[in-house]
Amino acid sequence: MTTTPKPKRRRHTRRRALPSGIQQPPWQSIRNPYPPAEILSPDALEDIHRASLSILEQIGIEILLPEAAEYFRQAGAHVTGTPARVTFEPELIEALVAQAPSQITVHARNPERHVRLGGDYVAFGLVASAPNVTDIDQGRRTGNRHDFCQLLKLGQTFNIIHVIGGYPVEPVDLPPPTRHLDAISDMLLLTDKVLHAYSLGRERILDGMEMARIARGIDHATFDREPSLLTVINANSPLRYDRPMLWGMIEMAKRNQLVVVTPFTLAGAMSPITVAGSLAQQNAEALAGIALCQIVRPGSPVMYGGFTSNADMRSGAPAFGTPEYLKAAQISGQLARRYRIPYRSSNVNAANSVDAQAAYESVFSLWGAISGKAHLIKHGAGWLEGGLSASYEKVVLDADLLQMVAAYLEPIRTDSESLALDAIREVGPGGHFFGTAHTQERFENAFYQPMISDWRNFESWQEAGSPSALQHANALSKTALTQYTQPPMDSAIREELADYVARRKAQGGVRD
Amino acid sequence: MTTTPKPKRRRHTRRRALPSGIQQPPWQSIRNPYPPAEILSPDALEDIHRASLSILEQIGIEILLPEAAEYFRQAGAHVTGTPARVTFEPELIEALVAQAPSQITVHARNPERHVRLGGDYVAFGLVASAPNVTDIDQGRRTGNRHDFCQLLKLGQTFNIIHVIGGYPVEPVDLPPPTRHLDAISDMLLLTDKVLHAYSLGRERILDGMEMARIARGIDHATFDREPSLLTVINANSPLRYDRPMLWGMIEMAKRNQLVVVTPFTLAGAMSPITVAGSLAQQNAEALAGIALCQIVRPGSPVMYGGFTSNADMRSGAPAFGTPEYLKAAQISGQLARRYRIPYRSSNVNAANSVDAQAAYESVFSLWGAISGKAHLIKHGAGWLEGGLSASYEKVVLDADLLQMVAAYLEPIRTDSESLALDAIREVGPGGHFFGTAHTQERFENAFYQPMISDWRNFESWQEAGSPSALQHANALSKTALTQYTQPPMDSAIREELADYVARRKAQGGVRD
Repeated sequence: MTTTPKPKRRRHTRRRALPSGIQQPPWQSIRNPYPPAEILSPDALEDIHRASLSILEQIGIEILLPEAAEYFRQAGAHVTGTPARVTFEPELIEALVAQAPSQITVHARNPERHVRLGGDYVAFGLVASAPNVTDIDQGRRTGNRHDFCQLLKLGQTFNIIHVIGGYPVEPVDLPPPTRHLDAISDMLLLTDKVLHAYSLGRERILDGMEMARIARGIDHATFDREPSLLTVINANSPLRYDRPMLWGMIEMAKRNQLVVVTPFTLAGAMSPITVAGSLAQQNAEALAGIALCQIVRPGSPVMYGGFTSNADMRSGAPAFGTPEYLKAAQISGQLARRYRIPYRSSNVNAANSVDAQAAYESVFSLWGAISGKAHLIKHGAGWLEGGLSASYEKVVLDADLLQMVAAYLEPIRTDSESLALDAIREVGPGGHFFGTAHTQERFENAFYQPMISDWRNFESWQEAGSPSALQHANALSKTALTQYTQPPMDSAIREELADYVARRKAQGGVRD
Repeated sequence: MTTTPKPKRRRHTRRRALPSGIQQPPWQSIRNPYPPAEILSPDALEDIHRASLSILEQIGIEILLPEAAEYFRQAGAHVTGTPARVTFEPELIEALVAQAPSQITVHARNPERHVRLGGDYVAFGLVASAPNVTDIDQGRRTGNRHDFCQLLKLGQTFNIIHVIGGYPVEPVDLPPPTRHLDAISDMLLLTDKVLHAYSLGRERILDGMEMARIARGIDHATFDREPSLLTVINANSPLRYDRPMLWGMIEMAKRNQLVVVTPFTLAGAMSPITVAGSLAQQNAEALAGIALCQIVRPGSPVMYGGFTSNADMRSGAPAFGTPEYLKAAQISGQLARRYRIPYRSSNVNAANSVDAQAAYESVFSLWGAISGKAHLIKHGAGWLEGGLSASYEKVVLDADLLQMVAAYLEPIRTDSESLALDAIREVGPGGHFFGTAHTQERFENAFYQPMISDWRNFESWQEAGSPSALQHANALSKTALTQYTQPPMDSAIREELADYVARRKAQGGVRD
């Protein structure tokens, strides 16, 4: 390699300049054209399916909200006891689940940011729900509105992010009764992408929907026709749904909004220590949640969320990006496809800093999600420490990883220009390709240009102070913030949104 | 998670203690039972196949060794000019390639360390051919025999490593004429695993074979029947094989030893800037090399090596673990399977230190290799800086990654014990699984126990000095060296080997 001539320096060399600017592909829908990994045989997949139906028939799900239990009862499920235990005949659960759509469009306030889920489409979400925030300048601190807004700006700036939220970090300095009003308002004002609002009881999710509707400038009928918000529903594993989550499912499904049903089946803790057992339980919980949405409104949009991982059996802490996680992510995709329901996975790790561990656990997670053909990858950028911290640097590192994944998902072409026989003939044995017309014509965009990877030779890298990927990411996070521009919003809409927040605050917000 | 009880502390908690000891699975053959990723359609794969046949028919390969050109001529290829340009009718190349075996066993001096390649089998190799060596204690330095031996000891100690060499780092302080004698002797004495010797001309590879034969204590007929050594042949891309490599192919094939034919097609530099063009050229070069081995000895063992990556178009330096690399690794597997020849890939990155970049580029490489169903992953542990450095810490980090891959490749079971309905029934809604008999019976070995991943909570981790993965790896590399034990060797064999080295040194080694 030392004898190959250097390419001519051209305009694109500016991309190299860190941290003076960020070069990134434009916002676009990403499609995954590759066949999914099918690591489990059809028979073994049926074993898991049947086990989950047995769980639902013989053990059942505890449903802590009477209104939800009543929905199940009216649909023909067996409901007994207090709190209600709901069991299902296999035929009933299969019939309900079959009503879920296999393709979904979620509408953003900016029509250019609508997100399609299902089929070949895949979308990436910003980190959500971290209680802490961290960067190498200030270290780890409790979530607050300033960092919350800064992370939103990063999520808006990086085009590879399609979905914002929940909250990238919890803005703990906002009072709980009205926190969701300010937080969702910030999300709507600072970004124009698809939003995720929390299901923390009935009132909050109703507020979330109304604010999403106002921000889109649409009437109620249009809102009911066009999913414009998503929520994530976690089972209180094992086999229980609690009141706030059940309200979220009911109210969101009523309005035809997207419910992402995601059991948190941590093998060895909240589910059996075996991957098969955890997946059977995950599947039972997911199908029960999906069934409720279909009872409330047949055909309402849902996703099948897979989050099965394993506990660190020494501490009980969740581990991510493990071999067991990778298998579970791929098999969860097989299960979701069995039901023809779009699949949600994640980009997760359990590292305490943005080091090699954070990177390899993340890429193992992405391997599972992408080869498992996930349609939505939550926590796509910024998640650290098993979700206990949102990291500025990790947002940037992950944005780079997601861009790499997107470039990987562009299939290669095998037309005669791409096969390049003429160039090979022109260069001949022992030559080099830098100078050929074939190379020069494709010079700028032939390969993905990473944001972080530092490919300088060792000596140049050392002269530059031996910067780590973490340091590059830190610098880029600042650059990205300087490049942030607030997306426009019609002033009438802005006013209506502010009025809504003010009115709900005057009412005292949510008292619970 | 904060409310889940801690598991009882048991014997296995000792695994946590870093750096006092290394817990690792035993040496074992690894099998990859999963279907390969097929990201290219059969038609598009044929486009590449046909393009490579056109290259071989219309452009040809430059063959710098007259003896090799003569082999090609006698087999029916067209040979013209000086240096010889060899072209092939498609039928000829296909007939020759079809003679290669699809399953290979390479014999180590320790019969328990034989390696099977092909089918579902996959083996992992130590880093090879780095000119420099690095660790965080002493920094980067030129390769030398001390570090060479230390890295061999690491390769012997980590059970996940199946194949040693070439040289993990070049022992530059050994004089070139006899370096291979001392280096191969060190490899044979310090390890008992399958070896890779360099094809640096005729005499060196003959020495390598003879030393491998002596170390196994077998006669020449057995050696000719049982592949006992492998060599890697790089085309001098584009479309040229040089004399040292051609000697390697000829002499190794003559003796029925394993030739891993690996063009280094760096898109934009030594091959076209398109992935399809680079793969067409890679395929042409690989098929020509494989054909030569089959001419020399029909049925001799070969591997199809894929190493296509892309140049950093700003510097000309090779990049690894890129989206283009990942696609090329998967498609190379499709090509190798098309010819029913075992496939060799790599675990590579272009980072200058063991940071997040090194980790994510490596896992992208492993993603390509494993989903591409590679049978041999060269540079499996320790490669850094695009191959310019072997890193002590990266050896350990990669050993952990390879162990994770091996754990991922263990398929999940879906028998009724694994589906765990009884445990799910016993625990019931809202319970936890730590205390169940089902969990306790599987507590120790349910999940892969990483060597490096630090899953302590943030506070404990911070109290411990916020160690990075790099620091863990550094400590573990020292532990591993203290745990190294030299594998036994029969004293008569040891003596015969020493005599051979002494005799060849007395003859002056290799003069070139």
